[in-house]
Order: sequence, then C-alpha cells, then structure tokens
Amino acid sequence: MADKTLDTLFHETLRDIYYAERKITQALRKMARAAQDPKLKEAFETHEDETQGQIERLTKVFELIGKRPRGKTCDAIEGIISEGEEVMEEFKGSPAHDAGLLAAAQAVEHYEISRYGTLKAWATQLGMDEAADLLGQTLAEEEKTDGLLTKLAKTAVNTAAQKKAA
Amino acid sequence: MADKTLDTLFHETLRDIYYAERKITQALRKMARAAQDPKLKEAFETHEDETQGQIERLTKVFELIGKRPRGKTCDAIEGIISEGEEVMEEFKGSPAHDAGLLAAAQAVEHYEISRYGTLKAWATQLGMDEAADLLGQTLAEEEKTDGLLTKLAKTAVNTAAQKKAA
Repeated sequence: MADKTLDTLFHETLRDIYYAERKITQALRKMARAAQDPKLKEAFETHEDETQGQIERLTKVFELIGKRPRGKTCDAIEGIISEGEEVMEEFKGSPAHDAGLLAAAQAVEHYEISRYGTLKAWATQLGMDEAADLLGQTLAEEEKTDGLLTKLAKTAVNTAAQKKAA
Repeated sequence: MADKTLDTLFHETLRDIYYAERKITQALRKMARAAQDPKLKEAFETHEDETQGQIERLTKVFELIGKRPRGKTCDAIEGIISEGEEVMEEFKGSPAHDAGLLAAAQAVEHYEISRYGTLKAWATQLGMDEAADLLGQTLAEEEKTDGLLTKLAKTAVNTAAQKKAA
C-alpha cells in the first residue's frame, strides 16, 4: 500500500465528488420542478447553473494532476439524494413538502462543503495552489448556497409549512 | 396528505437522525481503533462519548413530542459510513490512511450539522423551545468536533500523510 499516497487519496476523492456533482445536477433539476415556493424553485435553478461551473472547475483540477475526468460511484450522495426523493414522494401535496425538500438540499450542500473543504486542504498540502484556488471557489459557492437556503427556510418555507398546517 | 404537516416531518427526521447516531457510535468505535495518529484516535473516542449524550438528548426530544424513540433507516448515513469503510480498507497501511479517515469523519459531521440545524429550526418554528435548545446543544458539539478535525488535519494528519509519501 506504500504507493497509496496523499496524491492517490486526492485523486480518488476528486473522482467521488465529480460523480456526486453530476448526480446533484440531475437532482437539482427534479427539486426545482417539485418546489412550490417560487424563491426555492429559483434557488435550485440558480444552483443547478452554478453546479455546471463547478463541474468545469473539477475538470480543470483533473487536468492539473494529469488525469482524465472520470467519476467513481459515491455511495454517500446516492444515499443523501435517495432520502430527498423519499421526502418528495412522501410529502407530495403536504404543506411541509418544501421544508423537507429544502432540508434535503442542505444535506447535499453539507456533503459538498465537507468534500471541497477536504480537497482544498489536501491540494494546499500537496503544493497545488491553482487546484486549491479552484476548489476554494466552489467551496465558497456551496457555503453561500447553504446560507441562502437557511435564510429561505427561516423567512418563508418553514413559516408556510407551519401556517398551513395549523 | 393534508395530515403530513411540519410536525410529521419533524418526527420523521428525528427518527432519521436517531438511527444515524446509533450507526455513528459503531462507526466511531471502528475509526478510533483504525486511527494511527494518537490525537485523531482520542478525538474519535471523545466524540463517541459525546454521541451517547446526543442520543440521550434525542430520547428527550421524542418524549417532548410524546413519541417512543424509534429509528428509521437513514440511507444517507449508510452511504457516508460505507465510503469511510472503503477508504479505511483501501488505504490500510498507507501514510494517507488517517487523512482519508479524518475526511470521512468530517463528512459524517457535516451530515449531522445539516440535520441538527434543520431540526432546531423546525422545533423553533413549532414553538418547541426546549427541544430547540436540546438540538442546539448537539449542533454546537458537532460544529466544535468538525472544527477540531479541521485543525487536526491542517496541523498534523495531512502533513504526516504528505511527509511520509515524499
């Protein structure tokens, strides 16, 4: 296992998040269609566009390490997305639907925040400043999206879920 | 579906994290055994103890809503933990092993941060101040653990992975 260094780990984790991002693009499209609140719908659409840019950045990072962009099944994102689908199904037509959908999206964001945080730190450790910068840009976008979702939850979505439920 | 209100969603999500926490306890035990760095091992052990307290808090929240503590399979945590096990297996004996293990633990922490953040906000929305307070205590612990892991990664674990790999 001596050949399995931090470089290998970096590459494997890059493949993991590359797979995840493509799954997330599909999931965001479904979530945008399912969202009832127009602002939540818009947030999902905006983030879907952003995700395309994030995939491009990942492609550049693959280039920087001289590897072909190739995904690797990410069990974590499969599980997180499948929970989101379950909530969409189970709460369809319920006033709490959007609150559940938004929470599922925040679970996705947090997975990405942990992965990009890790990858950025590893890139820095490996002396790959350009890669660290690209990964840091995406990390900042994910954190911004998570903050926006928290704001939407507190100002509109949770209140709507509770009001109609009363 | 009119009966599926924010209360229902809160209860379902509580069951999800209750299941997750018990899986996490087992995972942390394995991770503590597998960690090479003594500080990382200690961090996992401390967090395993903390997780017991978090499960007790969840039991209290179940009581507050008049429900029996019962878990519900959480696909997300299954996927996240399975990725951690994969990295432990694949990087066993490699200098990058602990870096991969630490990253897997941060993915777990971030899942919990997203869930407790959501549950706390919903408890507040539902006017359940005591529940919100209990969930907020756990949220603060998860955020603290994540910060501690980031610090450990940057000050010791990533450097060790890189140095030995050189």
